Amino acid sequence: MSEDPRYARGRARLREIHGDHGEAVVRALEDVAPDLSRYIFEFAFGDVYSREGLGLRDRQIATIAALTAQGNAQPQLKAHIRGGLNAGLSRGEVLEIILQMAVYAGFPAAMNAASAAREAFGEADAEDP
Amino acid sequence: MSEDPRYARGRARLREIHGDHGEAVVRALEDVAPDLSRYIFEFAFGDVYSREGLGLRDRQIATIAALTAQGNAQPQLKAHIRGGLNAGLSRGEVLEIILQMAVYAGFPAAMNAASAAREAFGEADAEDP
Amino acid sequence: MSEDPRYARGRARLREIHGDHGEAVVRALEDVAPDLSRYIFEFAFGDVYSREGLGLRDRQIATIAALTAQGNAQPQLKAHIRGGLNAGLSRGEVLEIILQMAVYAGFPAAMNAASAAREAFGEADAEDP
Amino acid sequence: MSEDPRYARGRARLREIHGDHGEAVVRALEDVAPDLSRYIFEFAFGDVYSREGLGLRDRQIATIAALTAQGNAQPQLKAHIRGGLNAGLSRGEVLEIILQMAVYAGFPAAMNAASAAREAFGEADAEDP
Amino acid sequence: MSEDPRYARGRARLREIHGDHGEAVVRALEDVAPDLSRYIFEFAFGDVYSREGLGLRDRQIATIAALTAQGNAQPQLKAHIRGGLNAGLSRGEVLEIILQMAVYAGFPAAMNAASAAREAFGEADAEDP
Amino acid sequence: MSEDPRYARGRARLREIHGDHGEAVVRALEDVAPDLSRYIFEFAFGDVYSREGLGLRDRQIATIAALTAQGNAQPQLKAHIRGGLNAGLSRGEVLEIILQMAVYAGFPAAMNAASAAREAFGEADAEDP
Repeated sequence: MSEDPRYARGRARLREIHGDHGEAVVRALEDVAPDLSRYIFEFAFGDVYSREGLGLRDRQIATIAALTAQGNAQPQLKAHIRGGLNAGLSRGEVLEIILQMAVYAGFPAAMNAASAAREAFGEADAEDP
Repeated sequence: MSEDPRYARGRARLREIHGDHGEAVVRALEDVAPDLSRYIFEFAFGDVYSREGLGLRDRQIATIAALTAQGNAQPQLKAHIRGGLNAGLSRGEVLEIILQMAVYAGFPAAMNAASAAREAFGEADAEDP
Repeated sequence: MSEDPRYARGRARLREIHGDHGEAVVRALEDVAPDLSRYIFEFAFGDVYSREGLGLRDRQIATIAALTAQGNAQPQLKAHIRGGLNAGLSRGEVLEIILQMAVYAGFPAAMNAASAAREAFGEADAEDP
Repeated sequence: MSEDPRYARGRARLREIHGDHGEAVVRALEDVAPDLSRYIFEFAFGDVYSREGLGLRDRQIATIAALTAQGNAQPQLKAHIRGGLNAGLSRGEVLEIILQMAVYAGFPAAMNAASAAREAFGEADAEDP
Repeated sequence: MSEDPRYARGRARLREIHGDHGEAVVRALEDVAPDLSRYIFEFAFGDVYSREGLGLRDRQIATIAALTAQGNAQPQLKAHIRGGLNAGLSRGEVLEIILQMAVYAGFPAAMNAASAAREAFGEADAEDP
Repeated sequence: MSEDPRYARGRARLREIHGDHGEAVVRALEDVAPDLSRYIFEFAFGDVYSREGLGLRDRQIATIAALTAQGNAQPQLKAHIRGGLNAGLSRGEVLEIILQMAVYAGFPAAMNAASAAREAFGEADAEDP
C-alpha cells in the first residue's frame, strides 16, 4: 500500500524541509492514524510540496502566513517556522510575515505566532548552538 | 488629522501594489468609515507594507495564502492576487500558492480561491488586453 | 409544540430588537427548517436575549462585534446593526465597534462589515426617510 | 500524469456521489487550476472517499456538518447536501444535521446552511420533478 | 428555574451519551456560569440531542466532524469522540471521520484531532481496561 | 522610531485598561518581535482604543465578545476580561456576554470562554484579595 512512489518522494521532501524531527512528528501519528500519516507523505509532501512552479522558500512563506492567520495549529506553525529557516528565510523575515498577519487576521493571531517563533528559534538554538 | 506622513507613504505604497483601482476601493470606504480608510493607508500600507525586511513579492505570497485559508474575504483576495501579479508573481505561482492551501485549509477554500483567481486574471486581461 | 412560553417571549423580544422585518426573516425559515426558526425564538430570543444582567444596547455591541470578527454571516450582521440602532447605538458607535475589530480580526473583516453597515444604514433611511 | 488509477477511481466515485453535475463543477476548474481539479479526483475522491471503513451516507453526514460549521463554502455545501440525498439521507436528516450545528457553530451558521438546503432541494426538484 | 422538563431530559440524554464524566464536565461550569451549564442541559441535550429524526450515532458523526474542522475545542472534541464510541462508532470509524476532514479543513486540523482521538482512546482504555 | 506620540498615548491607554501586568505582556514581545509590540502600543491602543466615539466599557464588551467567538486567543481573552472589569463591567456582565456567544459561535466557544473567565476572576482575586 505504501509502495506508491509518491510516498518515498514525500518522505524525502519532508526530511529536506523539516529534518529528522519533522519526519518523526508525522510518523508519530502512525500508531493512531497510519493512513493520515501516509497521506501527509504522499499527498502533502509527495504531491504538493514536490511540485515545481513555486520555490520552497516561497512555499514556506505561504504556509507560515496561513497557519498564523488560522491561529489554531501551533505545533504545525512551529514546525513550518523551522522549515522556513531551513528553506532560506531569515528569522527577521519569518517575523515580518507574522507581523503582516496582524493586518489580515488581527493582533492576537500575530502575538501567538510570535510566541511560536520564539519557541521555534529557541529549539533551533538548542539543537545547533 | 490625515497629515501624518504615514498617510501619504501608505497611499503611495498601496498605489504601487494595487494601482488606481486599489486606491479607489479603499477610498470608497470614506463615505461610511473614513477612519477605517485612513488606518488602511496609515497602518496597513504606511507602516506594515512599507517595512523593509521582506520583499513585496514575498509579502503578496503571505497575503494571498492567508486570505485563501481564511476564506471569507473574496474581494480582498482578488485585489491581492492582482497586487501579487504587479509585484512579480506569475499567474502560475499564484495558483501554486492557492493549491498549496488545500493542504492547510482544505479543498473548498482552495476551490473558491481558484475562482477568485480566474476573475482577477480576467479583469487584468480586460484592462490590459 | 410552540406553546412553550419562551416562544411568545422570544417573538416579542425579537420584534422589539429587529422589528417586523426581523421577525419575517426568521419566519422565512419555517418552510424549510421550522424547528430552527422555533429555537431562534425560544432559545436565542426567549432565553438568551430575554435575560436580565446585561442591557440590550450592550448585547447588540457584543453581537455586532462577534459577527464582524467571524466574517461569514453578512445577513445576520446587517440585521443586528439595525437592531443595534433600535437599541440606542448611534451609527457612529456601530462604526467604532466595526473599526475596533480590525485590531482583533484584521482589516478585511472590518472592511466587509463597513459595507454591511452602509447597506443597513441605507435600508433604515429608505424605510424611514 | 493523470494516468494514476486513483484519478479514474476518484472520477467514478465523485459521479456516484454527485452525479454528472458534480463532475462538471470540478472539471470547470480545469481551465484555471487543472492540478487542483486533478487532486480533487485523485486525493479527495480517489483516496479518501474511496476508503472502506466508513459508509458513504456517514461520510456525507460528516461533510455536511463540517461545511455548515465552517460557514464559508456555500457552493460546496449545496453540492454535498445533494450528495447526501444521493447517499440515502432524507431531507429531514439533512436538516437535523444542520440544526444540530447551531449548538456547535451558532445560529447564523445553521441559518445560512438551511438556506443552502432550500436551494439544493429546489434544484433537486427541478431536475427530477 | 431549573424545573423545565427539558432540563431533566437533557441531563439524562447527556449521561446516556457521555456518561457520568460528561455530566461532571458540564456541571463543573456551574460555579462560574450556572446558566450556561443549564442551557447545555436544556437546549443542547434536552432539545437538540433529544430530537428524533436522526440517530445518535449519526449525530456523533456530525459533531466529531464539526469540532475537528473548527479546530479550537479540543476538550469538547475528546468528549464527543468518547460519546461517539458509546453511540456505536468504532475507533476506526472515528478515525475515518477525522481523516476525511483533511479534505475539508486541512491536514493540521486532522492531525490535531487524531491526537485528541489518541487521548480519548487512552482514557477509555484506562477506565475500562 | 518609538517617538511617535501615539506610542506614549497607547502605553498610557493600555496601562489604564490592563494595568502593569498588561503592559508587561506586550513588552514581553519585545525580545522576539519589537515592532509588533510597538504597533500594539501605537495602533491598537494609541489609535483605536484612544478614539472617542465609544466608551471604554463598550469597547471591552466588543473585544470580549469577539475573542470568545473566535475561540483561539485564550491569553488575550483573559487579559480583556480583566480589562473589562477595570472598565466597569461586573463579573456577571462578562458572563452574560460569554453566554450570549453560545448563540453566535456555539457552546464550545462559550464553555472555553467561561473557563477563561474563571481563571481571570481567580487571578484578580489573588492580586486583590
